[in-house]
Amino acid sequence: MAHEQHQELLKTLRECMEACNHCFDACLKEENVKMMAECIRLDRECADMCGFLEAAISRNSPFVRQLAQVCADICEACGEECRKHDHEHCQKCAEACMKCAEACRNAA
Amino acid sequence: MAHEQHQELLKTLRECMEACNHCFDACLKEENVKMMAECIRLDRECADMCGFLEAAISRNSPFVRQLAQVCADICEACGEECRKHDHEHCQKCAEACMKCAEACRNAA
Amino acid sequence: MAHEQHQELLKTLRECMEACNHCFDACLKEENVKMMAECIRLDRECADMCGFLEAAISRNSPFVRQLAQVCADICEACGEECRKHDHEHCQKCAEACMKCAEACRNAA
Amino acid sequence: MAHEQHQELLKTLRECMEACNHCFDACLKEENVKMMAECIRLDRECADMCGFLEAAISRNSPFVRQLAQVCADICEACGEECRKHDHEHCQKCAEACMKCAEACRNAA
Repeated sequence: MAHEQHQELLKTLRECMEACNHCFDACLKEENVKMMAECIRLDRECADMCGFLEAAISRNSPFVRQLAQVCADICEACGEECRKHDHEHCQKCAEACMKCAEACRNAA
Repeated sequence: MAHEQHQELLKTLRECMEACNHCFDACLKEENVKMMAECIRLDRECADMCGFLEAAISRNSPFVRQLAQVCADICEACGEECRKHDHEHCQKCAEACMKCAEACRNAA
Repeated sequence: MAHEQHQELLKTLRECMEACNHCFDACLKEENVKMMAECIRLDRECADMCGFLEAAISRNSPFVRQLAQVCADICEACGEECRKHDHEHCQKCAEACMKCAEACRNAA
Repeated sequence: MAHEQHQELLKTLRECMEACNHCFDACLKEENVKMMAECIRLDRECADMCGFLEAAISRNSPFVRQLAQVCADICEACGEECRKHDHEHCQKCAEACMKCAEACRNAA
């Protein structure tokens, strides 16, 4: 089963999706939201892409490799933005993104 | 953190999403696809709704309760269709759907 | 064809989705992002829900009425937030949301 | 506004999404569903990807070009499968897919 071969990737994608969406929510509640604008934007991009790829893998999509390549780029961009910020949610998100970028590169 | 309070529900949603998408893929490979048509349709509905609610919870959406109510109905409909079929993927999917329907009712 | 009976609703949903996503992007570029935080959050909620319902209608989902009810609530909440702000993108978005809320109520 | 520069592409994506989802629904109602299995699978892939790209464009995503490239491949694969079948919904879908594949290539 495709989705069982990919269990580790599915888990990494889901953790990244959750970290990005939590970071999105937390950034919107920060004192200095303006400083977080790019983080908010990329959190949404990354969460949505990880969720999309997770679904694609679990339905055995023939396009997993191509989607994983784009997902890797998005995770990397989001991780790079997040790690500029000291908030714990950003640092955790950066870590999840970088781990996910690598897992996606391996699947691509 | 909203998404941590909901860890159990997130897990149940994700397992249901994966079971439905796997069942969708497996039904399309069955000998008698015609008999599985309604299962295929509802697997997609249910997987998409579970994925949507999972994302909504993790971004701390103000609409989780209303979405969970609709998700419960969709899970139930999918579970009822799946359990009519003897295939292992359908039986497993029915179980995941019924568990998820109950978890969504509790969150609604 | 279900998606042809619903042509008017599909158009309204799509216009609302696009207005919300444009407002999301424009809010992130405003001087005072903090003031727009709730608008940014609800723009995402509303755009995602409108897109989800648009897809559900076009695949003839059996759950259109229930989804339309939730979508109406989300459009209304987003419209009410948007109309508090003088930016042209917010005012346009408020209008699209209110129109969509009404169309969804009629479909629910 | 990004989503206004892309009005033509947005329209093409949406027409392809709707054609694929309608074809998905109609294939599930055909006498010979087994023959349509690959069409059903690719209709879902293509509809979901077109919807994802439509949303990405309207929120001014920095990843539109990369997503458009994958979308072009998916549209092409779906269009090639659809045009094998004589059903009117398949022929219309094939046409929408091929038009969308080309529009996506131009945007990529």
